[in-house]
Amino acid sequence: MAKVILKKHRDKRILKGHLWVFDNEIERIEGDYEPGDIVDVYNSINKFLGRGYINPKSKIRVRIMTRKQEEIDREFFKKRIENAWEYRKRLVDTSSCRVIFGEADFIPALIVDKFSDYLVVQTLALGIDKYKDMIVELLDEIIKPKGIFERNDVPVRELEGLEQRKGFLKGTFDTKIEIVENGIKMVVDIENGQKTGYFLDQRENRAAIKPLVKDARVLDTFTHTGGFALHAAHYGAKEVIAVDISEHAIDYVNQNAKLNGFEDKIQGVVGNVFDVLRDYHKNKEKFDVVILDPPAFCKSRSALEGAYRGYKEINLRAMKIIKPGGFLVTCSCSHYMTPELFMEMIQDAAKDAKKTLRQIEVRTQAKDHPILLGSDESLYLKCVIVQVI
Amino acid sequence: MAKVILKKHRDKRILKGHLWVFDNEIERIEGDYEPGDIVDVYNSINKFLGRGYINPKSKIRVRIMTRKQEEIDREFFKKRIENAWEYRKRLVDTSSCRVIFGEADFIPALIVDKFSDYLVVQTLALGIDKYKDMIVELLDEIIKPKGIFERNDVPVRELEGLEQRKGFLKGTFDTKIEIVENGIKMVVDIENGQKTGYFLDQRENRAAIKPLVKDARVLDTFTHTGGFALHAAHYGAKEVIAVDISEHAIDYVNQNAKLNGFEDKIQGVVGNVFDVLRDYHKNKEKFDVVILDPPAFCKSRSALEGAYRGYKEINLRAMKIIKPGGFLVTCSCSHYMTPELFMEMIQDAAKDAKKTLRQIEVRTQAKDHPILLGSDESLYLKCVIVQVI
Repeated sequence: MAKVILKKHRDKRILKGHLWVFDNEIERIEGDYEPGDIVDVYNSINKFLGRGYINPKSKIRVRIMTRKQEEIDREFFKKRIENAWEYRKRLVDTSSCRVIFGEADFIPALIVDKFSDYLVVQTLALGIDKYKDMIVELLDEIIKPKGIFERNDVPVRELEGLEQRKGFLKGTFDTKIEIVENGIKMVVDIENGQKTGYFLDQRENRAAIKPLVKDARVLDTFTHTGGFALHAAHYGAKEVIAVDISEHAIDYVNQNAKLNGFEDKIQGVVGNVFDVLRDYHKNKEKFDVVILDPPAFCKSRSALEGAYRGYKEINLRAMKIIKPGGFLVTCSCSHYMTPELFMEMIQDAAKDAKKTLRQIEVRTQAKDHPILLGSDESLYLKCVIVQVI
Repeated sequence: MAKVILKKHRDKRILKGHLWVFDNEIERIEGDYEPGDIVDVYNSINKFLGRGYINPKSKIRVRIMTRKQEEIDREFFKKRIENAWEYRKRLVDTSSCRVIFGEADFIPALIVDKFSDYLVVQTLALGIDKYKDMIVELLDEIIKPKGIFERNDVPVRELEGLEQRKGFLKGTFDTKIEIVENGIKMVVDIENGQKTGYFLDQRENRAAIKPLVKDARVLDTFTHTGGFALHAAHYGAKEVIAVDISEHAIDYVNQNAKLNGFEDKIQGVVGNVFDVLRDYHKNKEKFDVVILDPPAFCKSRSALEGAYRGYKEINLRAMKIIKPGGFLVTCSCSHYMTPELFMEMIQDAAKDAKKTLRQIEVRTQAKDHPILLGSDESLYLKCVIVQVI
């Protein structure tokens, strides 16, 4: 097995729990290897740090899978998947949930989501893609789904020298799947929906709006397929307006509203959220609760400044159309927007909007998306609930 | 009304939402006033900042009550208390809860807790103490409790030139009150218990341990009257050991265990938590879940370094006696220990204990203790749940 030796002092992040070795941290590699092979990682004074898979094409040169000198074989993956599944069974409703969350489940670059009786799989790096058949077999054995679908149609795979693809891995079935989230029915399009079809990471945050929305007039922005909007209606909102720029998304909102008997309560609106918020303010429309769940405004550190302005803009506009004593539910799913920076942005917006805020809850992604401490990337979703006074 | 004028640039914190004016921030005071009087606060360029009460004896010279030039009268307090009560009715189980949380409810230095049908009141500053009779009358009118008790036996009152006292404010009644928290019965001693008798701020955090403790062996340290221990038993733990240094506290634990039929499940232990954790490690005792809910190790900024070491010590020791895959529930109620510093301490302890951690939840105080943004003091309780691997 090849031996990857790090430069001096480049072991600190890894000792703190991070699982990635970047190309520029490597001093030399002893021994031969093929792309995707398992290698051992050592620091500059020959201390073993971990074992993982290597890809010379990727900036993330090695992804560590274990801190032990153990065999990476079928038994290894079986134990990892079983542990991940046991964790979900203890902590969340497993009818639909994330089953494997890559690094945070110590299986780097593997994503598995469960929607009712079906699994959706992503293998996002070369080293894990090589084990795809074995992983699918193990998932079938341990979780016993009715079918498995591959959603590897993601550009990030090309950085790894992998082609984009999607299709059935086990069985053939209708890829529009009905799931139940917090008692609400939703149709998830696992073939053509965003990512694996639906954002399971907001499940607990959607449930957290329960006390806020009773008898309220609610505005849900960037609603996608209507997750928050449906929850608001379910928890007793008087009226819900759900906005998304995509007509396709609003079609789903309307379909999901009908499925739950909320067609009279939820009004889907196709529109640019920035403009919609400004227009409501101009027209003196007021809401008891506004929900902001934008896509990642910054996908890189360099885009952070512009992203900060974007977040501040929508938060400020939202604060202005909330009735005194009403609530703002504001999210960011970009990990570059750290929790500290996100809170700073919220306070900054409040100052400009001349509002006083009371923090009710600061939440993150759902428990089936655990956060590996020492690995900054794994905390990405923030959901802050404030009262606007 | 006297006019308090701040020094140049000393208005920033107040403009961001903070309600305190410190003695060294004041340029001059125009007009006469008595200690406890209502005064207006202006910045150095004569911009009105707020209205509050003054105490020349206190380092916190003025506590702002409103940002408007409005009358501070019965109607003012009535509206404030009603708003606070409406907020609790919307967001929490009001059978027992904090009704008024001082600054965060815009009534600085007033604390009101509700235990079943009884209220406990603290007026912790001279300016608010002057309104005590009126406040008691309004609380009686709005909340209609069976009785009201005063717990002003706190040293902080002496900094305000107030005497310490406790006693009945409305009615006379048995001061050992049975409350129900998350379905668990508890006897609260509002006359002689810590603070107002019981720490309501951990209610939601106690409920959050539910998925962790099923069939588990649980160690609850600094248990006080058994809050977390009783919840563990209630949520299906196999065995619970509850440790506190106070024999009096353990008497309450045993009494509360009996009240809920958990006397066979919960074992109360009188002991120093530092020693108990070390002994368990020495004796190779293992737990599925360890709960650390220490008193504030640092009550001042200067004590922070020693406090950090104390927190790290117990966290490290706890991590060592948790079975692989088990859970640590770790709290700090000192606001000097910021959320960032607390997370850093946890990771620091994990590194020394050679453990990998997965963050499940980062929680704060319950929603009836809202956090006023811009007022650092009002975020004080951290409760972090991690899986220890």
